[in-house]
Amino acid sequence: MQIYGDTKSGNCLKVKWVCDHLALPYDWIAVDIMTGESRTPAFLAMNGAGQVPVVRFDDGRTLAQSNAIIRYLARGSALIPSDPFDAAKMDEWLFWEQYSHEPYVAVCRFQMVYLGRSRDERDPDKVRRGEAALARMEEHLQKHRFLATDAVSLADVALLAYTRVAHEGGFDLAAYPAVQRWIREAEQALGLAG
Amino acid sequence: MQIYGDTKSGNCLKVKWVCDHLALPYDWIAVDIMTGESRTPAFLAMNGAGQVPVVRFDDGRTLAQSNAIIRYLARGSALIPSDPFDAAKMDEWLFWEQYSHEPYVAVCRFQMVYLGRSRDERDPDKVRRGEAALARMEEHLQKHRFLATDAVSLADVALLAYTRVAHEGGFDLAAYPAVQRWIREAEQALGLAG
Repeated sequence: MQIYGDTKSGNCLKVKWVCDHLALPYDWIAVDIMTGESRTPAFLAMNGAGQVPVVRFDDGRTLAQSNAIIRYLARGSALIPSDPFDAAKMDEWLFWEQYSHEPYVAVCRFQMVYLGRSRDERDPDKVRRGEAALARMEEHLQKHRFLATDAVSLADVALLAYTRVAHEGGFDLAAYPAVQRWIREAEQALGLAG
Repeated sequence: MQIYGDTKSGNCLKVKWVCDHLALPYDWIAVDIMTGESRTPAFLAMNGAGQVPVVRFDDGRTLAQSNAIIRYLARGSALIPSDPFDAAKMDEWLFWEQYSHEPYVAVCRFQMVYLGRSRDERDPDKVRRGEAALARMEEHLQKHRFLATDAVSLADVALLAYTRVAHEGGFDLAAYPAVQRWIREAEQALGLAG
């Protein structure tokens, strides 16, 4: 299996973390999105959306969208709750991550890390919505150890990706103590700590 | 089961269509998002994201995020491919819909239908990205009958929701003949036609 990705991208790291956690072997193919490597005809044939990560399996079939990839790779593992409703709550967080968290928390970080903008040059609307996403996580994590159930799941993998580096997008995690506690525990449970 | 939703919202209609198609009984509770009904304490207790649709089951448990809801309600049905890789390709479209289609095609429609803006007053960046999403669907549907596999699936349910009303957001579907063909066939397969 080949993972086409960028190690600065949280979406790509989700796939790496799941493979490492489940001991799935892979080759990592570095793709530089800033020089157009994800917009070449060969890349677009793998993923018409022109985005990393993409996974190519040994039979040539390809799969895109980070949360769809990790959901497929982790099937049958403890990272997906066996109870159907618990799995649905995990999915609720996965879709929320892509709709209400990543477009703000990750995009502010993209503006600073990839485009070199200062903290004050971030899009104010994205900052406000990113803070709202972190506040919603804080409220939930004040009452729950992990996001979907009492055990670590793909919901934690997906939200961890950009939350743990939110400070690189100018967000001050000191305002979110339950989120900080959860980052430590999720990293520990996934074997990412230290 | 109660569905809290707005019949003008494609995200809410996805849930209704799946219930109707699978003959799942439900009560529809109308929520007016424009008057703050999705931001009350009672509503936020069901969905901290303050968004419709939300489903409340008879045991009091609740589930949000349209694509997570339909994935749960349709489990074990023909709307989810039984082959795990085919189901993953369906998921790829579900996540793409929420990240690269809904925020542009649906939001342009929101600006016109809910906020009363004219076609020329839409956000130009959202128009451009909405057109890119429709172009990607067109390219895929020139070669494939449905989105994920040869049979209708939740991928078609999810993308149909806002694509069939894209003209209400100022998008001209005459430029996308394969998308128009797919709308007719998907509506037919889901029992929405006529």
